[in-house]
Amino acid sequence: MAKDTRSIDELYAAARGGERRALGRLLTMVERGGPNADAVSELAHADAGNAHIVGITGSPGAGKSTLVGELVADLVEAGQQPAVLAVDPSSPLTGGAILGDRIRMEDRNANAFIRSMATRGHSGGLALAVPLAVRLFDACGYNPVIIETVGVGQVEVDVVGAADTAVVVMTPGMGDAVQANKAGLLEVADVFVVNKADRPGANDVRRDLDLMLDLSHMTGQESAHGYRPPIVMASAINGDGNDEVWATVIAHRQHLADTGQQEVRHQHRIRTEVRARLAQALSESAESLMDGDGADQLRRAESAQISPNQATNELLVQLLKDQS
Amino acid sequence: MAKDTRSIDELYAAARGGERRALGRLLTMVERGGPNADAVSELAHADAGNAHIVGITGSPGAGKSTLVGELVADLVEAGQQPAVLAVDPSSPLTGGAILGDRIRMEDRNANAFIRSMATRGHSGGLALAVPLAVRLFDACGYNPVIIETVGVGQVEVDVVGAADTAVVVMTPGMGDAVQANKAGLLEVADVFVVNKADRPGANDVRRDLDLMLDLSHMTGQESAHGYRPPIVMASAINGDGNDEVWATVIAHRQHLADTGQQEVRHQHRIRTEVRARLAQALSESAESLMDGDGADQLRRAESAQISPNQATNELLVQLLKDQS
Repeated sequence: MAKDTRSIDELYAAARGGERRALGRLLTMVERGGPNADAVSELAHADAGNAHIVGITGSPGAGKSTLVGELVADLVEAGQQPAVLAVDPSSPLTGGAILGDRIRMEDRNANAFIRSMATRGHSGGLALAVPLAVRLFDACGYNPVIIETVGVGQVEVDVVGAADTAVVVMTPGMGDAVQANKAGLLEVADVFVVNKADRPGANDVRRDLDLMLDLSHMTGQESAHGYRPPIVMASAINGDGNDEVWATVIAHRQHLADTGQQEVRHQHRIRTEVRARLAQALSESAESLMDGDGADQLRRAESAQISPNQATNELLVQLLKDQS
Repeated sequence: MAKDTRSIDELYAAARGGERRALGRLLTMVERGGPNADAVSELAHADAGNAHIVGITGSPGAGKSTLVGELVADLVEAGQQPAVLAVDPSSPLTGGAILGDRIRMEDRNANAFIRSMATRGHSGGLALAVPLAVRLFDACGYNPVIIETVGVGQVEVDVVGAADTAVVVMTPGMGDAVQANKAGLLEVADVFVVNKADRPGANDVRRDLDLMLDLSHMTGQESAHGYRPPIVMASAINGDGNDEVWATVIAHRQHLADTGQQEVRHQHRIRTEVRARLAQALSESAESLMDGDGADQLRRAESAQISPNQATNELLVQLLKDQS
């Protein structure tokens, strides 16, 4: 294949026109970060804002991929054009598995776009790349944009909590409800799916969740808007409950629209993105200072001539405006 | 008990004189962070620099607490004055368990000081508080200072990787070796302990580790210094192998001294601390800007008048020197 020499503008126009290869190249730029990623984001910013963003997370083995695969097939059949961004913050090693799923899913659904995103062991990268990839899918007419992630840790809470609708998938017998509660997923979940609901213990998971929701809703924020996250029992591999999962997601979107919470979520998402970008830029400034003009402070701290605290303060004076 | 109205200077002098209550109060200040923590750190900075800092980590249930308890008893019996800082970054819920261990351990060993440190769900706090607590123990004459942490994630790698000697505890049948490899613990470990070595599978763990070390040492850094992390088989609860664990830790300290690596580790530790302090201070500056003079940029980004990228750049101009 000849080398693609198109500019970012040209690739973007082609991607908006439906060319999958152009979109793939832009997503690679977004994943790598830096000035090209920013340029793509700027272009997409003008055209985005229509997609319903759905985050789906849960422990490894909870059957998320199967569930997402079934949802995508149903959405395509209903004439929609869904995109899936599959991110795995904990393990670069499973990239292969996600890729395999991706190819199988796209084979079946030519109108869907499925992309896996590696993190290269750097969780900060995800916080920057995910919103840009979502914006690009959105600008290219994909709707809904589904972010699929693995695990119940802080990164998942951040990624999924920034969606319009956050779906948490659980299974019997893994203590998932307790884990999710600890990790703070309970606070960000809008829809719970108890998958593999034909297995023993499924009702226990439901009961645990119900109890925790009872407790958390006494003090919760969402309760002010009259919304309690529904619990859907499903068996994705048999197709049982998939319709109800999606209907519940759509009902949540309607709830957001009815209560003005959609705008609140959007603002929260932008704020989170700016915060992540600021943190990244500040970290880069600090690193380049420590390699350059600030190397002396660091050396003096290393040899205990000044304390780490003093070194930090002197570096801040070099770095920040309004430091005295 | 009357309220303790002593100044930080007075508390510090008392703690250096051996008063446990004063040391406890200073550790609480360190844990809370802020100006008082900085003041304690400044005082301790002048007197620290003697302690051998040992990091111990491993999965929950690997028997670390038992191992540490036995080591502490042996050290006290040998006339030393060890301190233990038990941190649990993943779960504030286990604080109680750690506290129970702590009380039992101190009951038996009046010359040891054991302190658990909660993270209050904020992993950044650990990166700031741990080095300060270690410095304070060091300045008060405790040696060695043992940092005990749970799990094999990034926080553990950071905390334990900043020690002079990093000990990773594994057990049969938990896939620990593979997990540790993924998390990057293999690169920072100086001593491996296969605990519960009387259980089936202990030799498999050893073989897995050996294989991984063979592979990693083809490209590893430490190999340049002729050091390969030893693997010690132990059964802490029976007391088997504990002597060998500590002898191996001491041998590693000797290796550090012989090769000049002790100084390199110290410098790395200071650099890591300054980096964490800078990140914290920059994050606070960014947050207060977004609440103050930068609120307008944020609002315009939220209403899509400017892109998140533009908002970030404008905020950076307000924040940093040398931005045009």
